Amino acid sequence: MNLMSEKSTLAGQIVGSIQSVVGLGSVALHEPQFDGNEWKYLKECLDSTFVSSTGKFVDRFESDLASYTGAKHVVAVVNGTAALHVALLLAGVKPKDEVLIPTLTFIATANAVSYCGATPHFVDSEERTLGLNPQALREYLKDVARVRNGQCINNITGQVIRAVVPMHTFGHPIDIEKMVEIAKEFCLVLVEDATESLGSSYQGRHMGNFGLMGTLSFNGNKTITTGGGGAIITNDPVLAKHIKHITTTAKVSHRWNCLHDEIGYNYRLPNINAALGCAQLERLDGFLDSKRSLFERYKAAFSNVSDVDIFSEPAGCRSNYWLQTLMLGSSAAEHLNDILVATNDAGLMTRPVWTLIHRLAPYKECPKMELPVAKSLAKRLINLPSSSKLGMEDVR
Amino acid sequence: MNLMSEKSTLAGQIVGSIQSVVGLGSVALHEPQFDGNEWKYLKECLDSTFVSSTGKFVDRFESDLASYTGAKHVVAVVNGTAALHVALLLAGVKPKDEVLIPTLTFIATANAVSYCGATPHFVDSEERTLGLNPQALREYLKDVARVRNGQCINNITGQVIRAVVPMHTFGHPIDIEKMVEIAKEFCLVLVEDATESLGSSYQGRHMGNFGLMGTLSFNGNKTITTGGGGAIITNDPVLAKHIKHITTTAKVSHRWNCLHDEIGYNYRLPNINAALGCAQLERLDGFLDSKRSLFERYKAAFSNVSDVDIFSEPAGCRSNYWLQTLMLGSSAAEHLNDILVATNDAGLMTRPVWTLIHRLAPYKECPKMELPVAKSLAKRLINLPSSSKLGMEDVR
Repeated sequence: MNLMSEKSTLAGQIVGSIQSVVGLGSVALHEPQFDGNEWKYLKECLDSTFVSSTGKFVDRFESDLASYTGAKHVVAVVNGTAALHVALLLAGVKPKDEVLIPTLTFIATANAVSYCGATPHFVDSEERTLGLNPQALREYLKDVARVRNGQCINNITGQVIRAVVPMHTFGHPIDIEKMVEIAKEFCLVLVEDATESLGSSYQGRHMGNFGLMGTLSFNGNKTITTGGGGAIITNDPVLAKHIKHITTTAKVSHRWNCLHDEIGYNYRLPNINAALGCAQLERLDGFLDSKRSLFERYKAAFSNVSDVDIFSEPAGCRSNYWLQTLMLGSSAAEHLNDILVATNDAGLMTRPVWTLIHRLAPYKECPKMELPVAKSLAKRLINLPSSSKLGMEDVR
Repeated sequence: MNLMSEKSTLAGQIVGSIQSVVGLGSVALHEPQFDGNEWKYLKECLDSTFVSSTGKFVDRFESDLASYTGAKHVVAVVNGTAALHVALLLAGVKPKDEVLIPTLTFIATANAVSYCGATPHFVDSEERTLGLNPQALREYLKDVARVRNGQCINNITGQVIRAVVPMHTFGHPIDIEKMVEIAKEFCLVLVEDATESLGSSYQGRHMGNFGLMGTLSFNGNKTITTGGGGAIITNDPVLAKHIKHITTTAKVSHRWNCLHDEIGYNYRLPNINAALGCAQLERLDGFLDSKRSLFERYKAAFSNVSDVDIFSEPAGCRSNYWLQTLMLGSSAAEHLNDILVATNDAGLMTRPVWTLIHRLAPYKECPKMELPVAKSLAKRLINLPSSSKLGMEDVR
C-alpha cells in the first residue's frame, strides 16, 4: 500500500501544482482567444461576399505572415497537413522514395509522406529539444546510406532517401543549424515541419526559414487559429509561384478559359478563414507573452515536486511555448497513467505525447533507426493546459 | 465584311438579351448571397471559441444536409475535391485502377482519381443532360471490357475499371436510373459527383442518393457556400462511420491517447465554415426559386435570338439551375469567341465550358472512348451570370 499512497501523492501533487496556476474547475488543453479584430474582419469579409477562394484577407494574411516570419514568400493553405503534402511534392518526393521524419511527431508528418506514395523512415529524438537528433541521424546515415550522383541511397532498401522533415515539438526548435549541415552532407532536401512553432526562433531567425520550405498550421488548438488553416513559407520565388499554382488547382490564368497544366490540389485557404487569421496574427505577440508567463508560473509551481520538471526552451532558441510540457524523471514516469487519470478527473485536460508513429499499424513496417530516446520520452511527457489566456494577469 | 457584321450582330444580340435580364453594369458569373442568419451564426461560433474541428455547427450542418437531401448519413469535409477523393478511396479505388468519368467536367473529378493513384478513363456526354451518356458507355464497355470474378477488366490495358463517377453538369441530373443499371451490369461502383447539384433531383429523389456515395460542394461559387466546403452523402451506416473516421485523421477515440489505425486525412470542415453553411442552407429553397425564375427570364429574353437556346432541365428532373447555360447551334458556335469577348467586355461575366479533360497535359494519355458529343458541346456552351439575387423580383 506504500506504492499506492506514493502514487496518489505524486499525482495529487501534480494536480495541486497545476491548479495553483490555472485555478480550480475545468480547463482545456488549448483554447483559442478571440478578443481582437476577429469579429470586425469576419463581418467585413461577409459583407464583401468574398468568403471563398479569393479576397483581400488571403493576400493580407500571406503578406502579414511573411513580415512576421521574415520569409520572402508565404502561401496560405487549407491546413498544416496540406502544407506538408505540397511541400514534400515540390521538394521532389516521388513514389517509393523515403523521407526521414521523427517517430515522435503528430501523424500528419507521416501521412504527408504517404500521400506522395513515399515511405517514412523514422529518426530518434533528442532529449534537449524533443525533436529530431541530427547528430544521431548523421551516425546512422553513415552506416546505412551512401550518396551517389547527388542522391542519398538507402543501402538496405535500395530506395532514394529524398528529404528530411524535422518537427519543432510543442514549439521548441530542434538543433536546426546542425540539421542544415547534415542535410547538405547527405543531399537531403530539408523541409521544416514548423506547424507547432509559429513565433519560435533559432538564434533570432523564425523557424521554417532554414530549409527549402517550412510549414505552418493554424488549427483550432494552435497558437493562432483560422478555424482550419496552414501555410507554406519559402525564400525561393520560383518555388513560391509553383506552390501557389499547385495549391489552386494548377489553373492557368486566362480571362475565361478553364485550363490546368498539371495535377493540382484544391488547397486554398478560404478568405473567411484568412480574415480570422489576420485578426489573430495581430494578437500573436500578446499570446506569446502570455504563454511565456504561463511557463514561468508552471516552472515555479513545479519547483518543489520531485522528479518532474517543466520543459524549457533549448539554449539559443526562443520557443512559442505552444504546449506546456511536464517531463517526468524515470521514477515519476512509472506513475504516468495515474497522473493522466488524476488530472483529467480533476477537469484539468492533460495528455501524453502522441503514440510513436513507428508503433502505429499503418507504419509498423517502415524503415527506422534505433529509437531509444523517443521511446523514453513517450513514457515521460505530459502536456498541460496551455491556453494563452491562462498566462494573463487576471486568470486567477 | 458581311461575316464581321453578322458576328457583331449575334454577339451584340446576346449582350442585349443578357442585359435585358440582369441590367446594365458589371455582373459576376456567380456571387453568394448572405442575408439570412450567416452573421448571427458566425458570431455564435466565434463566441463559443469552437471555430475548428469540433462544434455544434458541424453536427447541425451534417444533420440539416441529411434532412435536405434525404440521405441517411452526411459527413462534412473541407471541400468538394476532398469529398471526391475520400469517396473514391472508400469505393475501393486502388493504384492502377481505372475510373470512368466524363471528359466534360471540372478538373476535380479527374484529380480525385489521380490522388488514388488510379487513371481516369474518359466517357462521352449526352446533349440532353450535358452529363455522362450511360447508353453510349454501355456500348463502349461491351466492346472494350469484360466482367470477370465480379470485376470489370479493360481488355486493352488489363486494368480493373473499378468505378464510374458521373457529374451532374451545372446542376442538371444525368440519366441516373440508366447509369445505376449499367454500373450493376459491369460491376462498377457508382459514386455521384453531385458537387454542382445541391437542390437537384431525379424523379423526386435528391442527387447523390443513387450510388454508393455522392459528393457535394459549397465552394464560393456554388448554390450555397461555406467559404470552402464539401460533403459526402451515403445511405450506408458502416461506410458513413468510415468516412467520418478517415476524414478526421483516423484517430481512435480515447480519453487522452493519440492513436491512428490507418492512413487518414485532415479533411474536416471547420466549425466556423459549417456555421456559414447552416445559415445558407436555411435559405436554399429561396435561392432555388430565384435561380429558376432567372432561368425563365433568360429563356424569354433569348427566345428571339436565332440558333441559341437556354439549356433546360432534362425531362423527369428538377435542376437547381446552378449555372445558366447558353447552348449555341452549329452556326452560332462559329462566333463563340466573339460572344465571350463581347459579353465580358460589356462587364457581363461569361465563360465557355471547362477545357475537356482528355485534352489537358496531365490527362492526354489516359484511356478514352470516342467523344464526339463532348467535343461538340465544348464549342457550344456558354455560362451566363447566374447569381440567385439576379432572379429576385427587385433586380432590375
